[in-house]
Amino acid sequence: MVDVFSAGDTSWVLIATILVLMMSIPGLALFYGGLEKKKNVLNTMFLTFIAFAIASIIWLVFGYQLAFGPTISGLIGFPEHLFLNGITINTLHGSIPEFVFIGFQLTFMGITAALVSGAIVGRMKFKAWITFITVWMILVYIPIAHWVWGGGWLSQLGVIDFAGGCVVETCSGLSALAIAILVGKRKDQTLLPHNLGYAVIGTGFLWFGWMGFNAGSGLMADGLAGSALLISNLAAAVGLITWVIIDMIQEGKPTVLGALSGAISGLVAITPAAGWVDIRGGIVIGAVASILSYLAVTYLKPKFGYDDTLDVFGLHGISGIWGTIATGIFAVTAIGGVAGLIEGNANQVLVQVIAVVATIIYAFVVTFIIGKVIDKLMGLRVTDKEEIGGLDTNIHEEAGYRL
Amino acid sequence: MVDVFSAGDTSWVLIATILVLMMSIPGLALFYGGLEKKKNVLNTMFLTFIAFAIASIIWLVFGYQLAFGPTISGLIGFPEHLFLNGITINTLHGSIPEFVFIGFQLTFMGITAALVSGAIVGRMKFKAWITFITVWMILVYIPIAHWVWGGGWLSQLGVIDFAGGCVVETCSGLSALAIAILVGKRKDQTLLPHNLGYAVIGTGFLWFGWMGFNAGSGLMADGLAGSALLISNLAAAVGLITWVIIDMIQEGKPTVLGALSGAISGLVAITPAAGWVDIRGGIVIGAVASILSYLAVTYLKPKFGYDDTLDVFGLHGISGIWGTIATGIFAVTAIGGVAGLIEGNANQVLVQVIAVVATIIYAFVVTFIIGKVIDKLMGLRVTDKEEIGGLDTNIHEEAGYRL
Amino acid sequence: MVDVFSAGDTSWVLIATILVLMMSIPGLALFYGGLEKKKNVLNTMFLTFIAFAIASIIWLVFGYQLAFGPTISGLIGFPEHLFLNGITINTLHGSIPEFVFIGFQLTFMGITAALVSGAIVGRMKFKAWITFITVWMILVYIPIAHWVWGGGWLSQLGVIDFAGGCVVETCSGLSALAIAILVGKRKDQTLLPHNLGYAVIGTGFLWFGWMGFNAGSGLMADGLAGSALLISNLAAAVGLITWVIIDMIQEGKPTVLGALSGAISGLVAITPAAGWVDIRGGIVIGAVASILSYLAVTYLKPKFGYDDTLDVFGLHGISGIWGTIATGIFAVTAIGGVAGLIEGNANQVLVQVIAVVATIIYAFVVTFIIGKVIDKLMGLRVTDKEEIGGLDTNIHEEAGYRL
Repeated sequence: MVDVFSAGDTSWVLIATILVLMMSIPGLALFYGGLEKKKNVLNTMFLTFIAFAIASIIWLVFGYQLAFGPTISGLIGFPEHLFLNGITINTLHGSIPEFVFIGFQLTFMGITAALVSGAIVGRMKFKAWITFITVWMILVYIPIAHWVWGGGWLSQLGVIDFAGGCVVETCSGLSALAIAILVGKRKDQTLLPHNLGYAVIGTGFLWFGWMGFNAGSGLMADGLAGSALLISNLAAAVGLITWVIIDMIQEGKPTVLGALSGAISGLVAITPAAGWVDIRGGIVIGAVASILSYLAVTYLKPKFGYDDTLDVFGLHGISGIWGTIATGIFAVTAIGGVAGLIEGNANQVLVQVIAVVATIIYAFVVTFIIGKVIDKLMGLRVTDKEEIGGLDTNIHEEAGYRL
Repeated sequence: MVDVFSAGDTSWVLIATILVLMMSIPGLALFYGGLEKKKNVLNTMFLTFIAFAIASIIWLVFGYQLAFGPTISGLIGFPEHLFLNGITINTLHGSIPEFVFIGFQLTFMGITAALVSGAIVGRMKFKAWITFITVWMILVYIPIAHWVWGGGWLSQLGVIDFAGGCVVETCSGLSALAIAILVGKRKDQTLLPHNLGYAVIGTGFLWFGWMGFNAGSGLMADGLAGSALLISNLAAAVGLITWVIIDMIQEGKPTVLGALSGAISGLVAITPAAGWVDIRGGIVIGAVASILSYLAVTYLKPKFGYDDTLDVFGLHGISGIWGTIATGIFAVTAIGGVAGLIEGNANQVLVQVIAVVATIIYAFVVTFIIGKVIDKLMGLRVTDKEEIGGLDTNIHEEAGYRL
Repeated sequence: MVDVFSAGDTSWVLIATILVLMMSIPGLALFYGGLEKKKNVLNTMFLTFIAFAIASIIWLVFGYQLAFGPTISGLIGFPEHLFLNGITINTLHGSIPEFVFIGFQLTFMGITAALVSGAIVGRMKFKAWITFITVWMILVYIPIAHWVWGGGWLSQLGVIDFAGGCVVETCSGLSALAIAILVGKRKDQTLLPHNLGYAVIGTGFLWFGWMGFNAGSGLMADGLAGSALLISNLAAAVGLITWVIIDMIQEGKPTVLGALSGAISGLVAITPAAGWVDIRGGIVIGAVASILSYLAVTYLKPKFGYDDTLDVFGLHGISGIWGTIATGIFAVTAIGGVAGLIEGNANQVLVQVIAVVATIIYAFVVTFIIGKVIDKLMGLRVTDKEEIGGLDTNIHEEAGYRL
């Protein structure tokens, strides 16, 4: 009886969560589409949707197996159920129907792949993007997911990453940096969002979809899920307000774009920590994330001159690194059963640093190699004429608006 | 104890599902509104909302009774609980509170009615639409819902239609064709979407709301729900990518509109099949749907010259017919307990063909008659001046944008 | 065993509900942003987001304690768990994890605070808004929430308010009136929505998010939740259609803005009643709400000359008052266990009137005092130049659109 109940109950965490967090895909399309120039709005949204569609196929055919199959020396899963062959509607993953777990995990790969596109909007060939992101999911995302969540070497080391500080955030941020460097700078480097209202609403969908990722990651509808939801929402709010305060002090005015960036920084940083820290951890993590990402976007980017157009590295990379390490600092036994530095366990910080450094190096290097090979094979970049005239007209022969 | 648990658990399938899938209504408004011309954006969205509002009233007052009441010779339900009189918060439908089941089923009628509007946007009188869609729900939707899901003659024959291949898709598609023929062609036949970004985001909401319709239709939060969700998402992804490939081969470029159309074709076709087929069925159904709908939209429509403006027949009708038949081909016992042709049960295909042919004929003929009568009584079509000047200004005296 | 099951099950009502109803925040931003002038679209959306962010912090630090802590003479809660100290993931509120209940209640304060902004869009200083809404949550929202839901004097009197007729609707409506009077009229009093399509979609999100607030407020996934969802949706539909009919009779044309206003009036009025009345109550409450709000917006506002810009008082205040009283009229024992006037219990109407009058006076007077003090300290209103040029350019140095 207990088993039956538990199975039903935990399924619900995931099914309802999946339904809600899928809204993150149109949310990201709105966020990125609104921030880009008008002439590229459709291409920008298209990159997100096609990445999610490719992820949906790869994951079912073999991706889930590589990530969550029996580990081969801690490096990758063994694909014993290609095409999900042999998994039935009665197969359980822990106490959850495996099909439900597969669906939940699919959404993580889909959103992570789509996130990377923010670094190269407005200037990458469409076929090159499709090729790149397909190979990237297989060679970058899936191995890291296996290491951290699928029983691989980082999980064996004891890393804690509730909803994807390494797997989603650091991974997408560093990959974005690598591909941005390879694709190169835009001809016109000004960032003039063509529809900031889209970005506001998109952030709204991301924010509340994120509650689904973070509250669902405990795989139970219990007090921990409630806590993860509250702490995640708190970190987003603190991140937003921190960036608004910085804007007021540094620039003399609050900006909508700053507020959105702050909310996302807070959400990114709390992602690995949501089920391990308490309210005080949430406040510090959100506030520091906002400050670090502000510095990255405002000083680091111009100084080094990479063109990470929509700040995927600045927001997801920097705050993802911070959040993963901070999880080792602020974890409290009363919430997730693991002690962090503030409870005297310095070792957890060390493990977190190892995980994040491994993710940084692996994601950056392998993405760089993939991008380089594709550049040789087919070229990464559109022609100058296409870029200047806009990708919507020149690649898709469509127009974002006829107003 | 088991009963109590089951009741609570299955309620959750439906309550959470209802909350999510209701997002399909603004999603459809965005999709249709973005594809229409700027001058009709408000009228287009209005048609969707008012159809849903009318459905919400009819369903509670008598519609649910006609669809799901005790069958009268397999043709229609007996309305024993007008105004839901006699149904209490403790009444169960199977193991689910009946009020929850009523709410779930309401959303199907609401979205189906709203779908039909895509065929006649930009040129139908507002009062004629209200009258038409009210009568249509009573005389077309409700009987077909009774036949397939309410214990009527098609369900007695053994048709399987998980989430509405006949009831929602074929029904709306053929009704759209009939009313499009009656209302006639637009003065200006060019299709120039005024805001394709809206259509992208609208498709996002439809896509993920659709997961609610399809995952919820098993009425349990179990492995079957997880499977239905995964397979539905897969078919959407395969449909999207198939259409993009066709576009690249045939037109030399991928288009956003094509990608959206492909995703919707896949979703339509998997609707009847979601809980009966496995991953291989999902791939074939999604890919073939995309090809068939591409052919319908590109060749059939110009050849016959009907003005199904937003391709309700081309997408929902054609892929709905295909999906309903394909369900009889690809059903596997391991998923839903019913064998299809691939497991040697040719009879299931026959039953599916009977159901879809009955739906085609009934929906087309009765819709045509309803439309004809309303045309005689009040006229279906706006004046040329109203059409050319735009319905927003001329009917509602409002403007979609003041930018 | 029963306890374990119940806890899990009721958690689910709230977790899934929270995920969905959070979509109301971007929904409100779209609704208000679309109705405002183009030059203020970002500022308008910003007011909603920053109010929600501030609420997210206050609620966790001390707000929840003041609202739901042990009552001090029925007036306010005792804050025994500042920073949620002492509440663990195993703490229950009734049979629900307390963290889940805290998250659910947080969303009510967040949306209520954001609603108030509709009265003063386009002319209030950003810092004054932040200061005002922070103080307002502490001195106005939290005490009323305690009185009605937290064991305070109104709950002791026996008031029934399912999802916030007093706490959310009357409270936000009267507060909006007070601050609108203090801030004063716009220089340019025309209301010309710059993007009505946004308002349509925003209303869609509000409508379906509202189902989350109302279906979730019973804290159980049972027949009552299903009933509350159906009745709420019905009242919205009846409200929409009633206003469309009034528009057709009075103005000779249906308007989209009228339809949206009608839907919201119906939703507002059914909020306190959703779990207490049956289908007939829902129809009457929705229809009368639409009529009363139409009269308020069309006659009351011009007559008295206050500039409640987006009709927060006209929709939320008037329909909230009506709904709270109507709950006492139409409550039926079979639904929520409480008899209203139609079952002979005139006393319930009296109690409801006391509650709504107390809310009207308290919300209006205290909001007026807060606003007056802030006006003295820092001024409420932007300069004429900022107002005429638009707040997006002049306060945030950003542009809503670059099309």
